[in-house]
Amino acid sequence: MPSGEDDLIARYFKPLATDPGALGLVDDAAVLAASRDDLVLTTDAIVEGVHYLPGDPPEAIARKALRVNLSDLAAKGATPAGFLLTLALRNVDAAFLAPFAAALGEDAAQFGCPLLGGDTVSTPGPVMISVTAFGRVPPGRMVRRNRLRPGDRIVVSGTIGDAALGLDLLQRANATIPDEHRAFLIGRYRVPQPRLKLAQAVRDHAGAAMDISDGLAGDLAKMCAASGVTATLDAAAVPLSDAGQAMLGAGATELIRLLGGGDDYELLCGVAQNRLDEFLVAARRSGVSVTVIGTAETGTRQPRWLDANAAEIPLQRLSFSHF
Amino acid sequence: MPSGEDDLIARYFKPLATDPGALGLVDDAAVLAASRDDLVLTTDAIVEGVHYLPGDPPEAIARKALRVNLSDLAAKGATPAGFLLTLALRNVDAAFLAPFAAALGEDAAQFGCPLLGGDTVSTPGPVMISVTAFGRVPPGRMVRRNRLRPGDRIVVSGTIGDAALGLDLLQRANATIPDEHRAFLIGRYRVPQPRLKLAQAVRDHAGAAMDISDGLAGDLAKMCAASGVTATLDAAAVPLSDAGQAMLGAGATELIRLLGGGDDYELLCGVAQNRLDEFLVAARRSGVSVTVIGTAETGTRQPRWLDANAAEIPLQRLSFSHF
Repeated sequence: MPSGEDDLIARYFKPLATDPGALGLVDDAAVLAASRDDLVLTTDAIVEGVHYLPGDPPEAIARKALRVNLSDLAAKGATPAGFLLTLALRNVDAAFLAPFAAALGEDAAQFGCPLLGGDTVSTPGPVMISVTAFGRVPPGRMVRRNRLRPGDRIVVSGTIGDAALGLDLLQRANATIPDEHRAFLIGRYRVPQPRLKLAQAVRDHAGAAMDISDGLAGDLAKMCAASGVTATLDAAAVPLSDAGQAMLGAGATELIRLLGGGDDYELLCGVAQNRLDEFLVAARRSGVSVTVIGTAETGTRQPRWLDANAAEIPLQRLSFSHF
Repeated sequence: MPSGEDDLIARYFKPLATDPGALGLVDDAAVLAASRDDLVLTTDAIVEGVHYLPGDPPEAIARKALRVNLSDLAAKGATPAGFLLTLALRNVDAAFLAPFAAALGEDAAQFGCPLLGGDTVSTPGPVMISVTAFGRVPPGRMVRRNRLRPGDRIVVSGTIGDAALGLDLLQRANATIPDEHRAFLIGRYRVPQPRLKLAQAVRDHAGAAMDISDGLAGDLAKMCAASGVTATLDAAAVPLSDAGQAMLGAGATELIRLLGGGDDYELLCGVAQNRLDEFLVAARRSGVSVTVIGTAETGTRQPRWLDANAAEIPLQRLSFSHF
């Protein structure tokens, strides 16, 4: 007498529940076995029409739901331990669920973060996917957001603004951009790259870190405010992709869009000057590019962004907020 | 430059984040400090119009969202350690959020389960509240659903069917029931009582346990199926409240509704015969009533429910399913 809900779980998600702590998804709870580590907890939900577009491929939606959480673990210097999945669905649609679950399983394996359990509920509204992810760090070693110190160098991973441009391309057709740039930018919007390879370097060398989900400028301002410091940034140093650089050069977007747009899922770190070389070496070994873009300073004013002529750039809309 | 989202968190939820692991809700993650215990993970979401009614009081919604998860921890024999909260909201409505957060804080304190973090997102659809709760058990001691053994006595806590009757009363007016019964039954629907006081007795003496969320008959069938056994139950032994008994006696409901209706949030346990006395003593000390209602048996047929004349009761709709 399996119910539709049990059948859904057995059919699509039990194949992913290979970790012993998942108990084959037949229990109401999962287990994370005792260890000597602190457990880092993070949860992020994505809503159809808000965080992704209704036409996005199910595979991309699954990967994004998990990866935005893995990005948080990376920023905290944590090693993934597993995740719980909550799905709110209008109906059981195999055309959505089969590729969704397959891609989720691929990512769980790729990033070493097994499905441990979850909940499935019906909703008359938009699909919502909520993931709670767990990571391990040695006791007391989680990297905090609010530990940026005056003099710390501010470092970002990867390239900035690509996802915002990808979203722009999905929302309004723009024929002036080469196909490979379009595909790259849309891919950056749909499928973030959690920088887990950088987690060890962050844990070993960064004093403060967070992932960039709501736009670099706004997230940096949050880090400064939480830490009670300010910063001066060199906008020209902000790493851009070839595609981002090309759109900026062609006047197809503005710097403020790149610095203010969301969904980068790169890491933002504060690294003491005397740890910077070690951090850069460790980052290079990890294969993830990192770039120094500024310096933290004493004070509580808004962070200043300077252009190539050292003139201040006004940033009106610094960060994405849901409300 | 606090965003609406940050402001919402600071205003309503930061006062609840008194645990050091919550980091004042200024980080993207929370910490559960290393301990010698296994961590029990459970997550349950409630959706407006599906799990609660749009007119339900915000205080009751908050308590239900947390308590359905605490109920899972109790069934697993776990001691609460904290929870994460994900809120999907249409807008920031102080008339909802202020009493919601206040009641959530009261329950968190009452049950020793502090708010550690969460996520807040906007949705154009119904409000959804997802809680992930954490509990601790000594290594290897989480009580499983699939460990019911032939000969185990089947025990339930509290009284059965009250919440289903409460929901019925909210959905169709029924004037033939005394006001105090009506208030009791609606309260049982709106605000479950997690049986955390029974958790230690369950951990020490029960071989198998789960909480009853989708109806006693259906959840028992799930426990039997997961364990590879069957059972015979004495329907006349199922504990009913005075209000439930009165409605049944007056013909205002049927036994099948009580056995099949959801939202009991009582505990369903399998206890070996030679542990039963100890379990009953420990339960009595905890102050939570428990009742033996049947016995597990070898076999894989559906569990049998017998009436007072030992005649089998047909139960067509055994369990609630979302799909």
